[in-house]
Amino acid sequence: MDSAPVKKEKTLCDVGIVETLFHTFARAPHELQLEYGDRIGPVTMAYETYGTLNADRSNAILVCHALSGDAHAAGIHAGDENPGWWNDMIGPGKGFDTSKYFVICSNVIGGCRGSTGPSSIHPGTGRPYALEFPFITIADMVNAQRCLIDHLDIEKLLCVTGGSMGGMQALQWAASCPERVRAVIPIATTLKHSPQQIAFNEVVRQSIIADPTWREGNYYDDGQPEKGLALARMIGHITFMSDRSMEEKFSRRLKKSTPSFKFDADFEVEGYLRNRGESFVKRFDANSYLYITKAMDYFDLSGGKLIPQGRHVDTRFLIISFQSDWLYPSYQSQEIARELKGRQVDCTYCELKSTYGHDAFLLEVEEQTELIRHFLSTTSRGLHSWNGNGNAVRS
Amino acid sequence: MDSAPVKKEKTLCDVGIVETLFHTFARAPHELQLEYGDRIGPVTMAYETYGTLNADRSNAILVCHALSGDAHAAGIHAGDENPGWWNDMIGPGKGFDTSKYFVICSNVIGGCRGSTGPSSIHPGTGRPYALEFPFITIADMVNAQRCLIDHLDIEKLLCVTGGSMGGMQALQWAASCPERVRAVIPIATTLKHSPQQIAFNEVVRQSIIADPTWREGNYYDDGQPEKGLALARMIGHITFMSDRSMEEKFSRRLKKSTPSFKFDADFEVEGYLRNRGESFVKRFDANSYLYITKAMDYFDLSGGKLIPQGRHVDTRFLIISFQSDWLYPSYQSQEIARELKGRQVDCTYCELKSTYGHDAFLLEVEEQTELIRHFLSTTSRGLHSWNGNGNAVRS
Repeated sequence: MDSAPVKKEKTLCDVGIVETLFHTFARAPHELQLEYGDRIGPVTMAYETYGTLNADRSNAILVCHALSGDAHAAGIHAGDENPGWWNDMIGPGKGFDTSKYFVICSNVIGGCRGSTGPSSIHPGTGRPYALEFPFITIADMVNAQRCLIDHLDIEKLLCVTGGSMGGMQALQWAASCPERVRAVIPIATTLKHSPQQIAFNEVVRQSIIADPTWREGNYYDDGQPEKGLALARMIGHITFMSDRSMEEKFSRRLKKSTPSFKFDADFEVEGYLRNRGESFVKRFDANSYLYITKAMDYFDLSGGKLIPQGRHVDTRFLIISFQSDWLYPSYQSQEIARELKGRQVDCTYCELKSTYGHDAFLLEVEEQTELIRHFLSTTSRGLHSWNGNGNAVRS
Repeated sequence: MDSAPVKKEKTLCDVGIVETLFHTFARAPHELQLEYGDRIGPVTMAYETYGTLNADRSNAILVCHALSGDAHAAGIHAGDENPGWWNDMIGPGKGFDTSKYFVICSNVIGGCRGSTGPSSIHPGTGRPYALEFPFITIADMVNAQRCLIDHLDIEKLLCVTGGSMGGMQALQWAASCPERVRAVIPIATTLKHSPQQIAFNEVVRQSIIADPTWREGNYYDDGQPEKGLALARMIGHITFMSDRSMEEKFSRRLKKSTPSFKFDADFEVEGYLRNRGESFVKRFDANSYLYITKAMDYFDLSGGKLIPQGRHVDTRFLIISFQSDWLYPSYQSQEIARELKGRQVDCTYCELKSTYGHDAFLLEVEEQTELIRHFLSTTSRGLHSWNGNGNAVRS
């Protein structure tokens, strides 16, 4: 009858007040070499850490964010009540247990939340890069993360994880430098974008590009292409939810009792999308949205590129997908499992029940926590004897 | 070994050269009363007919078009090689067999392909209506069609049919005046838009509205909001196809061998969407897109509104949906069947296999033809003994 223990646990779960840190590297003449030939430098990485790195530096977990995420994955910033984007999963006693592990999250290059991206100052011109920012790939993002991990003097990560584009980065770590990562947890992700995923990204980009205030990317003096970016985000939000979760959240409820007889947001779902679009333009750079969606579209580790034939890899994988996720459907996670199985890699695949659609990786905390906690525990003990639970498909 | 019979049949199938006709009514003081209180007149309906009305005027089938369709459903216009949008289904020997039936298709009010809509001249101002055009509903569209059917002196239609928004109109005929229609074939449609369907329509509308050349709808002197309307259509096309049909049509093929390193259409699917968007602005009015999508969103015949409790209806229904249609998923057609079953209405529901997504109602000709031909044949014989085929679920 006493609810105190629950409350106590809740309090214990918080990582508390955190701060974003910055690491700048690749200063001339050692610029970062990018996959498609360009070089860039200096490069700044914004990052946060939670928990404590142990003495042998073996308990580090890199969390990679999705399209519009940032380095602020857990805790709160001083003076701001909004917790990080994966606060439910990162903290003492949580899935990524900061009483045991040292969790790192960095903003991707190409982004706009502290790491070098198109809104950063081009050292050659003293003005924002805009479209002079080079074309970047998921491999480039991972390369930059590796420089940060070097800087933190971590030889081998216990785990790299992330949902959606974060999962792509996790897979890329396994492809680029499997010797530096013990375990990978790709969530709600894919080896490559399907044409439907490319198509959604293309209309998102066209929303921005069609806005005349985008000015070929040179809008930094005049302000964001707000309408285009808001529209891009509205489209995104439809794909993040499921038909069912929209029905449960909005149904056909009206904002007012009668139609506007104009083109106002009559239905609650319209109002929700408009609000999400409007708030997004305050925190995200339109050019970053263009560059990052292109990086996602070009990502392709299918056909043996994840683990090349003949390479021995002892990295372990826990692959998670969600039933109602139609943006990154389960068959794409099954393809990852198939690739790994074909290379005799230790891999467990779980499809979790959820009605939340793609957002499930942010919202389905309980089942993810259980799976991940156990997987990390066996990984850190160097055990490979896990047999999954009732939902797991061992492949 | 002789392929002549097949060729002959192909030739016989064409309805040949057709012409769009116009009927103007609701001249002052007899304007058309609209559902939400406004009145409008004069109203012009563009329509086409194929086949011959029989002596007792009992063989007429009204075909209703989808969001961006028009009255040109079959045959070709003189000097134009493009056949009507349902040419594969309408003609001698086809599903809607013009050697037996008199087929009518009219452009909806609110449209821009010959019927009165926001681009028509407002009789009070001598200028296009633009946003002074009244808010219209699917019931208003059907009311206007009824005036056309009166004009053609047809007391009772043999059938009303259509896919997508055309199916909504077909259902609305059954709701508004069941005594005037023997049979209804709603295809790939719904009793009401889900919040996901509303959401897609909302981003489509916002694409247009966010384009500054839309000018609050007053663009007729300066030209269409082309970028916004093209973007709206690109979004639409993603929802018309399935994940699988996009994979089969485009996969991840590039237009050129290397990325643009800018934001060009690198992938074939991007080029396809852009082409579809660009060609659409040449044939469709942006304001019509706004009005018609709102009419779809407000359509709601759920909860007993299709057939009110206690009303005896002897209209027969054949409901068709397609497996890969995620825009109008099969569960929505099953809801129609459930409503009708609850009113003891003669109703057959068939879910057809298809990978084409929502476009299937335009592309899956063979199975639709077989079902529809049989259904119309038993309907016109006044028989009610049809038991469906292997795919049919009698409900």
